[in-house]
Amino acid sequence: MNQQGSAWLDGSPVAADWIDDRGLHYGDGLFETMIVRSAGVRFKAQHVARLAQGCHRLGIALDAAAALDRAEQLAGHTRGLLKLIVTRGRAVARGYAPARTETARQLLLRYALPDDDAIATTTETRVLLLKATLGENPLLAGMKHLNRLEQVMARAEMRGSTAFEGLLCSSSGVLACGTMSNLFLVRSGVLLTPRVDRCGIAGVMRSVVLREARKAGIETLERDLLPEALTDADEVFLTNVRLGVRPVTSLPGRSLSPGPLTRQLQQQVARLEA
Amino acid sequence: MNQQGSAWLDGSPVAADWIDDRGLHYGDGLFETMIVRSAGVRFKAQHVARLAQGCHRLGIALDAAAALDRAEQLAGHTRGLLKLIVTRGRAVARGYAPARTETARQLLLRYALPDDDAIATTTETRVLLLKATLGENPLLAGMKHLNRLEQVMARAEMRGSTAFEGLLCSSSGVLACGTMSNLFLVRSGVLLTPRVDRCGIAGVMRSVVLREARKAGIETLERDLLPEALTDADEVFLTNVRLGVRPVTSLPGRSLSPGPLTRQLQQQVARLEA
Repeated sequence: MNQQGSAWLDGSPVAADWIDDRGLHYGDGLFETMIVRSAGVRFKAQHVARLAQGCHRLGIALDAAAALDRAEQLAGHTRGLLKLIVTRGRAVARGYAPARTETARQLLLRYALPDDDAIATTTETRVLLLKATLGENPLLAGMKHLNRLEQVMARAEMRGSTAFEGLLCSSSGVLACGTMSNLFLVRSGVLLTPRVDRCGIAGVMRSVVLREARKAGIETLERDLLPEALTDADEVFLTNVRLGVRPVTSLPGRSLSPGPLTRQLQQQVARLEA
Repeated sequence: MNQQGSAWLDGSPVAADWIDDRGLHYGDGLFETMIVRSAGVRFKAQHVARLAQGCHRLGIALDAAAALDRAEQLAGHTRGLLKLIVTRGRAVARGYAPARTETARQLLLRYALPDDDAIATTTETRVLLLKATLGENPLLAGMKHLNRLEQVMARAEMRGSTAFEGLLCSSSGVLACGTMSNLFLVRSGVLLTPRVDRCGIAGVMRSVVLREARKAGIETLERDLLPEALTDADEVFLTNVRLGVRPVTSLPGRSLSPGPLTRQLQQQVARLEA
């Protein structure tokens, strides 16, 4: 580790050898990025649910709840960022086909939590629309899997820019998400966000925000949105578990102020303890 | 290694720790699967060219020719299968963005060459058309990168089937490739193969076959092909460096005999020493 962190593999400090791990060979696995506070992993139930669903879809045998319990124990209850990588495990035979007798592996990494989180309510958040697009695959959409070259290429496109985030369209031209966040728009009091059934990740904060909005009586719609929707939107914000609700203050061709619905959801989410 | 093989990492036997390698975290890297014989790596120049191009596109600093020279030296000149994994290296900072100061890593794995290769000219080769599709992304298409979950899901769909290979369409409905091979059709003496500019891998054997066909005066076309083209085709074959030219003998709804053009290219490729 060269990032002031600690790491565990299957519950023991540092790694065994990964040379035949399907995570490395194929990106055959999933990950969760989590915030830990004194009360433990924030939004733990949502992380467990997403990890469990991803494992089910990929056919990886894992007790997601037990995995997150152990991660929480290992990391301790001090403020930090946790990354849990679950791979299908070491290859049983050569080739893409899963043998279904693999033993899933868990790699847990702990990082210091960057300081920029605290200032999310006051900071400038400039966002680009990238040329890079996301391929569409219903079999993989929504999962936080280890195939992330599209995001790497998208961030590479942002090189030299001071923008905070870049937005991506899918190959069929609809808005998908940011490179590391989900996208929300507000139009005439309705909360809109792209579907995640052809590409994109079903973010934990995305699901929390949708739930909190419904609780507050706000109409929510998951639907196809063209890039032009960014021009019409009354409010635009980004979400992930690290950022919470992050108001976008600048888009190509326009600047925005954090709107009332964004502020409301931001506060509502900040108050949540679990 | 649990597959009777040997492994090297950056030129030294077995692995250091991979816990913060971008290959594992994002599939941020490439691989080459190569045949070694007494004369060394077969089609070495083509492997070098593809690896170099992939590194260029991903922005990974690597001398591909030197990497393959070293791989060849390490593996020795005895019959076998080599897999070289090149990752961007250990993460310099958290997040998707490449820092461009990473040091690329090379992991070399050597396997025994399966015996089924020798019988490729006589064996039954049954091929399915899969429901799984491939997402389209011009930024990644053609590269043999480490994001291979689509292939894992495709092979999982073949579970329980005795078919040798499964064919995939792209998300826009055109034929793309097999899970581990490129696809060729012959129609009225013309050699047709799907383009690899939106999805699929630019296979080394694919490029060798296209070159050999042109040398022999056969017209070749890289183009969009609908699945219906499988019904009309006079001949169908698959390629990869391990299989060479592999005649398809059974497709959904029809059986085929290896045709004259397939036989000709099969022999032409088999005779090549480099």
